[in-house]
Amino acid sequence: MRSEPFAGDDLSHDAFLGGRLEIAQPRRGYRAGIDPVLLAAAVPARTGETLLDLGCGAGVAALCVGARVPGMRLAGLERQPAYAALAQGNAARNGIPMEVVTGDVAAMPETLRQRQFDHVIANPPYFDRGAGTRAADAGREGALGEALPLADWVAAALRRCRPGGHVCVIHRAERLGELLAAMRGSVEVLPLIPRRGRAARLVLVRGRKGGRAALRLCDGWLLHDGACHPGDRENLTASTASVLRDAAALPFCR
Amino acid sequence: MRSEPFAGDDLSHDAFLGGRLEIAQPRRGYRAGIDPVLLAAAVPARTGETLLDLGCGAGVAALCVGARVPGMRLAGLERQPAYAALAQGNAARNGIPMEVVTGDVAAMPETLRQRQFDHVIANPPYFDRGAGTRAADAGREGALGEALPLADWVAAALRRCRPGGHVCVIHRAERLGELLAAMRGSVEVLPLIPRRGRAARLVLVRGRKGGRAALRLCDGWLLHDGACHPGDRENLTASTASVLRDAAALPFCR
Repeated sequence: MRSEPFAGDDLSHDAFLGGRLEIAQPRRGYRAGIDPVLLAAAVPARTGETLLDLGCGAGVAALCVGARVPGMRLAGLERQPAYAALAQGNAARNGIPMEVVTGDVAAMPETLRQRQFDHVIANPPYFDRGAGTRAADAGREGALGEALPLADWVAAALRRCRPGGHVCVIHRAERLGELLAAMRGSVEVLPLIPRRGRAARLVLVRGRKGGRAALRLCDGWLLHDGACHPGDRENLTASTASVLRDAAALPFCR
Repeated sequence: MRSEPFAGDDLSHDAFLGGRLEIAQPRRGYRAGIDPVLLAAAVPARTGETLLDLGCGAGVAALCVGARVPGMRLAGLERQPAYAALAQGNAARNGIPMEVVTGDVAAMPETLRQRQFDHVIANPPYFDRGAGTRAADAGREGALGEALPLADWVAAALRRCRPGGHVCVIHRAERLGELLAAMRGSVEVLPLIPRRGRAARLVLVRGRKGGRAALRLCDGWLLHDGACHPGDRENLTASTASVLRDAAALPFCR
């Protein structure tokens, strides 16, 4: 848990979505990769809708939605005050309105408990504290290793979602069973395939609350072309490059 | 439930695996498509190993494994006596030894309950009797609409599998959540993608009993090339054609 604010020297300023966003984030600590960007691209958001990002960190996922879809009303919940302050600063820096609430997904603050959103998104911590080792940095540990079970993240997201709205989660593919056990409504699964023929490292799971359609297991989204890589950035698939650099949407099934 | 044997006129004789197998099956009733052939191809069987096919019908899946891997010791369990007799006849017709037991997966016959196998496979009924309509043909109904819950099929398969052996199931992709909730051990998921970008209709789920590896969500197996089809047989992918016509194995992750 990190409560003291970051000093200027602690931060880097990184471009996301081909420079559409400038994000301040700690040099050491939890740093956003492509995961929150892919998550944001998978949200079927339309102008004027509301979105809540559970565990928003420095705000990358929510702000990516805001950069793609104009007029979103964004909110984020973040447990660590230093990260919540970063998210608020990143929103202001990019001219995208966002309400950031400091608080715990496991004890939903009253201001959020009274509301439901068109979209609720989450990129829950990846490491199972039962098995893994603790990260050296306290903030990174807080972001990666939070003790709340994955099923509780999904349940909290569903509670904050309006009927007919969407919950969208990105997580390690190996947790798919838990994600499906927790998700409700019309559920879609999109494996994120690093290269053709390889197992997914990540998976996107999206549920339309109250929907009764059968689960859809979509053809995997291919991240990189080629069988081996001189450097991953160089051979992103064209559609993934569009998502990461041009703020394109990421469809589940085409 | 069909107990009276099929008459010769009731049967067609169909080629599988490019003519390696000739299978007698009812003209009306449950007829094997590509599903049991794909299931058989996904079994990591080696010469001399044992295999049990739960709900073997006319024996296509087990006999496909037997045609691909020499020296397998095959067994099948089939509830409907007429289909069990067909399976026994199909084994003899193709010169592949197979022990066929008439009995119910829900009440495992004593002769099987005492044994465990290197591989247990199942292609459980696809239609949920809670929701669907009954098939007009009693045998087809018995094959498609059996009342046993999917989770019980998987549990029965795991009980009949030796530690370190494999359970492999093919089912509708929309049932993936139930399959993952029921499967144990080191689990692999292979979506079967009809065409690039489309949702899987079927999924293969394989578990190595007692294994502790994380779940692997493999890149989908592509069945057909092209975005639309003049006729599906004509544009199978080369790798799927190898599985269906040349008795090639179907790897999960490549």
